[in-house]
Amino acid sequence: MAIAPSSSVVRIGVLGCGHVGAAFIQLVERQADVIESRTGIRLQVSSVAVRNVSRERDVQLADGVLTRDAHAVVNDPTVDLIVEVIGGIEPARELIATALSHGKPVVTANKELLANVGHELWSQSDDAGVDLLFEAAVAGGIPLIRALRESLRGEPVTRVMGIVNGTTNYILTKMTEEGADYSAALSEAQRLGFAERDPTADVEGFDAAAKAAIIASISFGARVVAGDVYHEGISAVTDADIAIARRLGYVVKLLAIAEKIQDSATVAVRVHPAMIPVSHPLASVRDSYNAVFVEGDAVGSLMFYGRGAGGFPTASAVLGDVIDAAVNLRKGTHGTIGSFSRVPVMPIDETSSEYLIGLDVEDKPGVLHEITGVFAQHGVSIRAAEQEGIGSDARLVFITHTAREADVQNCVSELRKLSVVRRASGLLRVIGG
Amino acid sequence: MAIAPSSSVVRIGVLGCGHVGAAFIQLVERQADVIESRTGIRLQVSSVAVRNVSRERDVQLADGVLTRDAHAVVNDPTVDLIVEVIGGIEPARELIATALSHGKPVVTANKELLANVGHELWSQSDDAGVDLLFEAAVAGGIPLIRALRESLRGEPVTRVMGIVNGTTNYILTKMTEEGADYSAALSEAQRLGFAERDPTADVEGFDAAAKAAIIASISFGARVVAGDVYHEGISAVTDADIAIARRLGYVVKLLAIAEKIQDSATVAVRVHPAMIPVSHPLASVRDSYNAVFVEGDAVGSLMFYGRGAGGFPTASAVLGDVIDAAVNLRKGTHGTIGSFSRVPVMPIDETSSEYLIGLDVEDKPGVLHEITGVFAQHGVSIRAAEQEGIGSDARLVFITHTAREADVQNCVSELRKLSVVRRASGLLRVIGG
Repeated sequence: MAIAPSSSVVRIGVLGCGHVGAAFIQLVERQADVIESRTGIRLQVSSVAVRNVSRERDVQLADGVLTRDAHAVVNDPTVDLIVEVIGGIEPARELIATALSHGKPVVTANKELLANVGHELWSQSDDAGVDLLFEAAVAGGIPLIRALRESLRGEPVTRVMGIVNGTTNYILTKMTEEGADYSAALSEAQRLGFAERDPTADVEGFDAAAKAAIIASISFGARVVAGDVYHEGISAVTDADIAIARRLGYVVKLLAIAEKIQDSATVAVRVHPAMIPVSHPLASVRDSYNAVFVEGDAVGSLMFYGRGAGGFPTASAVLGDVIDAAVNLRKGTHGTIGSFSRVPVMPIDETSSEYLIGLDVEDKPGVLHEITGVFAQHGVSIRAAEQEGIGSDARLVFITHTAREADVQNCVSELRKLSVVRRASGLLRVIGG
Repeated sequence: MAIAPSSSVVRIGVLGCGHVGAAFIQLVERQADVIESRTGIRLQVSSVAVRNVSRERDVQLADGVLTRDAHAVVNDPTVDLIVEVIGGIEPARELIATALSHGKPVVTANKELLANVGHELWSQSDDAGVDLLFEAAVAGGIPLIRALRESLRGEPVTRVMGIVNGTTNYILTKMTEEGADYSAALSEAQRLGFAERDPTADVEGFDAAAKAAIIASISFGARVVAGDVYHEGISAVTDADIAIARRLGYVVKLLAIAEKIQDSATVAVRVHPAMIPVSHPLASVRDSYNAVFVEGDAVGSLMFYGRGAGGFPTASAVLGDVIDAAVNLRKGTHGTIGSFSRVPVMPIDETSSEYLIGLDVEDKPGVLHEITGVFAQHGVSIRAAEQEGIGSDARLVFITHTAREADVQNCVSELRKLSVVRRASGLLRVIGG
């Protein structure tokens, strides 16, 4: 289609051409006419910077579009807007900073970058009056960031809890629904391409922690970086833990939790496996889907559900941001993210939760008495207790009332020292009960 | 708190002070400091127009704020922005048109107005370069409209399906989970304030149809009004229908469905009870909650979940829009909704679906043969059939393959004429199978 004479062309420089970059370029090609008819703006991908120009790609590019020189792209005065899908901190940081300094809006899908140096870049973009948008950096195609930044800007948000890692949700779903053990479920996820060959970043919670830092920053206007976020992964979750949780009416999910501590400026941000009641909306989020549950005093409960990864879902989020930034650019305006205050992040030891604690014990008189004594001594009050098995297979399962993390950890250390306790396992936090 | 010298005050005129209006005024009071610190804008409710100034209200207002003259509010040059929460078409339309003509942005929660004359007002606001925002008009506190208008502006959206009426979802949940019959569930909903004394607008699908028209307009840039939307309510849904659905692995929900017909400019928009598989994310949306499921070629499946009604959730959505409009006003910019094309809306007769059909029949040889003959004659192919009960209580249940509505309706009329069929009931469309 010819460009309408009244339309304005916005030339896009794309840094990186992996799954997301290639999907974005295809999506722009396919949707350019519709976007032009709705906004009067013609999007054109004019340069694509890659490390290896001779590699086979999923996308056809016109001659002269592909280049190895990412710096030339951000410095090119004919490029209006930058899409950064390289990932990692450097050179992404430097390229984005350069683009912003030239007044070019930037759209990025880079969670690692934003979870570490986002505050520096956001403040640079605000000072320069240029958009830096990042919907795709958290929960892929789900329009969460825009909802938090704009729709809920006036809402007293109290807590945001999300399933923000598809790999671990896939593994936990297999363990829950098929009774697979952790390593079998991980292997299947790897075979199907849902997990990397080295799955550490996903299964140990690093990926979710980076997203939690961004979510906490945006939800509470607080400076939170990845290093502030306590994280535990799912590699220690056993099929026995999941079976107990199920029997008690819960499912186990890896949650990223950001909450505002009542009547204080403090926030708590953490990632860990948690038991959530089967009736909770997050409990029915299966396979590699993501979902984020937002609680606010006025709005009540909200949930946003969708694909948290994948080329096209992520590219869809990038494109939404690109249209927004292009429209703003042509109007000579930009979104503001506002300032972030330095607020205390509560150490995990001081957070409170209910806990499930499983103990393999000797089945003899006086055992329960001895164990409950240790709970009492640490001020951890028991909401429910039950015994499974008998004789040498006896296992006691406790659910506590809300208790401080440090008290529970000390209590469990002490329990491990008892001669009647063979193994303390399955320390799981219980949410939303 | 004193207003910071650098802050800009935006004075708001509120038309109507029912549940939503009163909640909005309280929310502005409570959040004004936070909003000011994030945006540099101080929101102030400066006038509130009501029909009866002497009525008791949930909110305290300063002297001189309350007035009976809504026209004076929209004409007052010291009022910067209008919030319309009166509802109904007139005088809301005239008041909003006047406000827009004075360059005042308007935020409205009025679905009836937008589903009937929205296109006229949207085009007026675009021509005037002034915001007309309406997040609260569909699905209350759920940030759906912003996602459709902005995040998904470049996404090839193919279908939007929503549970957008809390009253009917509450009634269907009671029928499903407690085996209540329709009238008992309705009475309970009325007792708890989830249903009006005259529940027609909710239970017959008028409310959902208005929301469907707005959703279709925004999703597809199409001119669709309430009168274009085929709607069937839930008053004919029986506990037997729900029981059969459950046994087959489905739940019954009232769905508003807007879809783009492939390879054509046509859209189909309708509201009716539907069977959805229990594993579908919409199936676990219980009680008076709303949720909207969006499908797009690139993004895949998204779902937005939350409170679709109630003073504070709706006020939260109004406040999000007010902040947006206020920020735009101070920047001298505004959002654009783009143009809407007149596209054909497919008549319900031409739409296609799978169907569940229940028939009370005489249990004698040859009955199934006679009945399947009628199906074949109308080109309706059967995917599954089963018999419940025996003798005079025999009931046959069929699920069809995808078939045209008109063919199925003709087939059922024909079946009703057979002497062996005592009653044809439970014609339910099956979705997402």
